[in-house]
Amino acid sequence: MPTEPPYETLDPADWGALRALAHRMVDDALDYVQNVRERPVWQPTPPDVAAHFTEPAPRAPAGAEAAYADFRSNILPYPMGNLHPRFWGWYMGAGTVMGALGDFLAAIMNPNLGGGNHVANLVEAQVIDWLKDLLGFPAEASGLLVSGGSMANFVGLAVARSAQAGFDVRAQGMRAAPQPLTVYASTEVHSCNQKAVELLGLGTQALRKLPVTADFTLNLDALRAALAADRAAGMRPIAVIGSAGTVNTGAIDDLTALADLCRQEGLWFHVDGAIGAVAMLADNVRPLLRGIERADSVALDLHKWLHVPFEAGGVLVRHADAHRRTFSLTPEYLAHEARGLAAGSRWFSDLGLQLTRNFRALKVWLSVKEHGLDRFGRMIARNVQQAHYLGELIAADPALELLAPIGMDIVCFRYNPGGRDDATLSALNKEILMLVQERGIAAPSYTTLNDRYCLRVAIANHRSVAADFDLLVQSVTQIGREVAPQFP
Amino acid sequence: MPTEPPYETLDPADWGALRALAHRMVDDALDYVQNVRERPVWQPTPPDVAAHFTEPAPRAPAGAEAAYADFRSNILPYPMGNLHPRFWGWYMGAGTVMGALGDFLAAIMNPNLGGGNHVANLVEAQVIDWLKDLLGFPAEASGLLVSGGSMANFVGLAVARSAQAGFDVRAQGMRAAPQPLTVYASTEVHSCNQKAVELLGLGTQALRKLPVTADFTLNLDALRAALAADRAAGMRPIAVIGSAGTVNTGAIDDLTALADLCRQEGLWFHVDGAIGAVAMLADNVRPLLRGIERADSVALDLHKWLHVPFEAGGVLVRHADAHRRTFSLTPEYLAHEARGLAAGSRWFSDLGLQLTRNFRALKVWLSVKEHGLDRFGRMIARNVQQAHYLGELIAADPALELLAPIGMDIVCFRYNPGGRDDATLSALNKEILMLVQERGIAAPSYTTLNDRYCLRVAIANHRSVAADFDLLVQSVTQIGREVAPQFP
Repeated sequence: MPTEPPYETLDPADWGALRALAHRMVDDALDYVQNVRERPVWQPTPPDVAAHFTEPAPRAPAGAEAAYADFRSNILPYPMGNLHPRFWGWYMGAGTVMGALGDFLAAIMNPNLGGGNHVANLVEAQVIDWLKDLLGFPAEASGLLVSGGSMANFVGLAVARSAQAGFDVRAQGMRAAPQPLTVYASTEVHSCNQKAVELLGLGTQALRKLPVTADFTLNLDALRAALAADRAAGMRPIAVIGSAGTVNTGAIDDLTALADLCRQEGLWFHVDGAIGAVAMLADNVRPLLRGIERADSVALDLHKWLHVPFEAGGVLVRHADAHRRTFSLTPEYLAHEARGLAAGSRWFSDLGLQLTRNFRALKVWLSVKEHGLDRFGRMIARNVQQAHYLGELIAADPALELLAPIGMDIVCFRYNPGGRDDATLSALNKEILMLVQERGIAAPSYTTLNDRYCLRVAIANHRSVAADFDLLVQSVTQIGREVAPQFP
Repeated sequence: MPTEPPYETLDPADWGALRALAHRMVDDALDYVQNVRERPVWQPTPPDVAAHFTEPAPRAPAGAEAAYADFRSNILPYPMGNLHPRFWGWYMGAGTVMGALGDFLAAIMNPNLGGGNHVANLVEAQVIDWLKDLLGFPAEASGLLVSGGSMANFVGLAVARSAQAGFDVRAQGMRAAPQPLTVYASTEVHSCNQKAVELLGLGTQALRKLPVTADFTLNLDALRAALAADRAAGMRPIAVIGSAGTVNTGAIDDLTALADLCRQEGLWFHVDGAIGAVAMLADNVRPLLRGIERADSVALDLHKWLHVPFEAGGVLVRHADAHRRTFSLTPEYLAHEARGLAAGSRWFSDLGLQLTRNFRALKVWLSVKEHGLDRFGRMIARNVQQAHYLGELIAADPALELLAPIGMDIVCFRYNPGGRDDATLSALNKEILMLVQERGIAAPSYTTLNDRYCLRVAIANHRSVAADFDLLVQSVTQIGREVAPQFP
C-alpha cells in the first residue's frame, strides 16, 4: 500500500496534553458535584446559549481543549438539576461520582456485551445474579440489563406475548391470533407499558386499564370482572401488570393477590417495579412488596433509587427458556463457538432487542462494591421517612392539602388557602410550581389526581435532608400567599 | 423529623480521597489506551478470574479504593479487544479517549433527555441536525439518538408500520390488519431487522428475504417479482429495507434504484446504514451511497465507524409527523409546559421507545468538535483503502482465496492450499481463526458465504496500519501451513 497517508488516528496527537486536560475535567467534575447544593436547582437556558447549538458541524478540528472549553461554558452551567438535594421532579436518580467514573472506565474498555468470551459479560451476569437475589428470584431465572424501565417492561411483555399467545407469534405475527390478546393493569400503570403494548402489535385497546381503589392500587374486583367479561367476549387474556410503585403516587399493588390470581387464571404476572422494586433493600418498604418474588417477569431501574447514572435498567424473567425463545436469532455471523473470542453460551443479545450492548453493568458493579447493599437500603428507607416527614409538615399547615395517600416516597399536595374551586386552585398551584422552579428553590413536578392539579414530590434523592423539605413547605406557602390574589 | 439518622449519602465521605482515586483512574485509563498495541489483541478469561464473578453482592461497603482495585485486577486485563489495531471482528468501533471522557461528563451531569428545558436536549438536537446534513436530509426531518443499529432499525420500521398500515395500528393492533403487511430486503439484511419485524408483530414471515446478485446486493428483478406476486396473493407491501453496508461483505444496495422503486410502488424506503451511512464522510464511499438522501428513514451507528464508545446509534425520519405519531404519549405527568423545567416542545421520548434517555449526545458532540468531520472522513477512507490493500496481499498469495468482492471495508477470504473440498477447507480455516485469536495476534471473525467458511476482516479501526495487515496475512499462511496436515 504505497500511498498510505501520514499516520493519523482519533487518538490524541499529544498524549501528555490530553492527560492534563482529563485531569482538569476530573477536578471540575468533582467540584461540580461537591458544590451542587450552593447552586440553584435549575435555571432556564438563556437564548444566546441556545443559539449556540444551531451551528453546523465543524469540518476542521478544534482540538480537545477547545471542545472542552465549549462544554464548560455552554453546557455544564445548564443542567436538568437532578443532582441537587431539592430536585424531586418526575422520578429521577441523583447520580454519583463513582457511577460516572464507572461509565468512564466502561467506555475506555469499550466492550460489546452482545456476547462472547470476555470478562465484561461475567460482570453483567453477576449483577443479574445480584438482582435475582434481591427480588427472591430463583437462580435459574434469566435477566438482562437494559436502558431503563421502558425497555424492561417491553422485554417482559414481549416474553409474555410469546409465551402466552398460544401460537407462534414470532413467525406468524399478531395478525394470526385467533382471538384478541389482552393485558390488564390499573389506570395508574406507567405509560411505557402502553407504548410497549402498541409496539408489540397488541394495540392500545389490548391494554385494559382498570379502576383503582382509594389508595390508587389496582381494584382486584374490577380485574376479576374484566377478565370474566373479556373471556366471555372471546378475548384471550395473557398477562397482568402489577405496579410496584406507581409514578403518580408511589402506590404498590397487592402483588401477592395478583400472583394468586395469575396462577389461578393461567396468566403471566409482570411487575413494573421501575420505581419500587429496588426498595426490597429497605426495611420499611420490603413488606409492601411481598409477592414480587412470584412474578414471571419484573422490570426495575437502577438509575432511579440506586442512583447509578442513566441509563441502567434491568429485567428479570423467571422462565429462562421463554426469555431466550422470544429474542434469540443465530445467523451465521453470530454463531456461538466453543473456542476463541466468540466462545460461550452467554449471549445477551439473545435476550433483548439490542445486539450491540455497552458495559453499563460496570457502574452498577462498582457502586454496589463501594457502598454495599445495606447503605442503599438506608438511603431508600430515609427517603420514605422524608416523605412522611413532608406529609407531617403538610398536615400541620392549614393552607396545604395532601391529595393522595403517601405511597412510598411520593407526596402529592397543593396549596389551598380556601374559598376557591378546583379549577382555580389548579391554576394557582401551577403558578406556584413555576415560581418554585424558576427561582431555583426546588424542583417538584406535578400531576393531576381526580381532576386536581397537585405538586408532586418524588423523593428519590440521596442528598436531601430534612431542612430541604422545611424550605419547600415555607416556599410554597410564601409564594402561595404572594400569588393567591391573582387567582381569586 | 426528630429521628433522622446521621447524615449519610452516596457521595464520598472523603472528597479528597475520591479525587485522588479519580486521578489515578485517568492515568491508568490513558496508559491503557496509549499502550494497547503492546498487548495481545485478546486472551481468554482464566477460570479463577471467572470464578470471582459468582460472589453474592456485599452488604457492607468495601469503599471506592477497594472497588477500583478489584476492577483493575479482575476486569481491566480481560477486554474484548476492539481497541487493538488488529481487531477486525464482527463490526465494532475502536473507541476514543475523548469519547470516554464524554461519557464521564455526561454521567456527572446525569440529565434525562426524555425532554424538558435544559441544555442537553439542545445538544442532542444539534447532533441530529448534523446527521441530517451528513445524509442530505431536509432540515424539517426528525431524528433520535438511540442505543445502536438494532433500535434504530426498530424505530424506522415502527414508523413505517404506522404510516403504511392503512389502519390505526397503534390502537387496534396488528390483528386488525385486513391484509398481511410485508417488508422486503435481501438475504444479506442484518438480523436485527428480522428481530424488529417480529417484535412489531408483523412476524418473521412478513420479512421477505430476496436473493442477491454476485456482489451480494439486492436483486432488483427479484424484488419486483416478489412485490407483484405478494400483491397478487393479497398481501400489502409496506416497506423496503436497503442495506448500506451489509454485515457479511459490506455490500451497498443500489439505493437510487430502490428509492425510485419505492416511490413508484408507494412503499416506505428504510435504509439500514448502521455500517455504511457515516461513510458519507469518505470521498471513496460517498458516490456508492447515492440515493440514501431519498430514504424515508435511515438507521446509523456512531459507535462503529465514528468510534464513539458504545452505545451511540441514530435514526433519521424524513416525515417528522409520522415519527411523532408512532411514539408520542402524553399522560398527565408528562404534559408539556410553556414555562419551568418541563417547558419546550422537544420531547425526545415522543420519538422512540425510551422515556428516560441518557446524554449520549455529548460524546458525539465533543468528538465532532475535537476532530472535525474531515478527519473522520479520512479515517473511514483509509480503512477502505486498507481493505483493498489486504485484497492485494490475498491476491498475491496463491494459498489465499478471496471469497467475495470487497465491500467497503470488509474482506472475506480463506486459506486454501489446494487439494481439499469445501468442508475440509472450512474446518481448516476455523482452526486457523481460533489460533489467530488464541495467540493474541489478531481478531478477525468469520462468516459463511455460499457454504464456504471464511475469515472475515471488518476494518472499522482508526488504529490499524498497513503493517497490521501484513502480519495478518503472514500469520494466516504460517498457521495454515502448520495445521493443514490435520485437515487432509
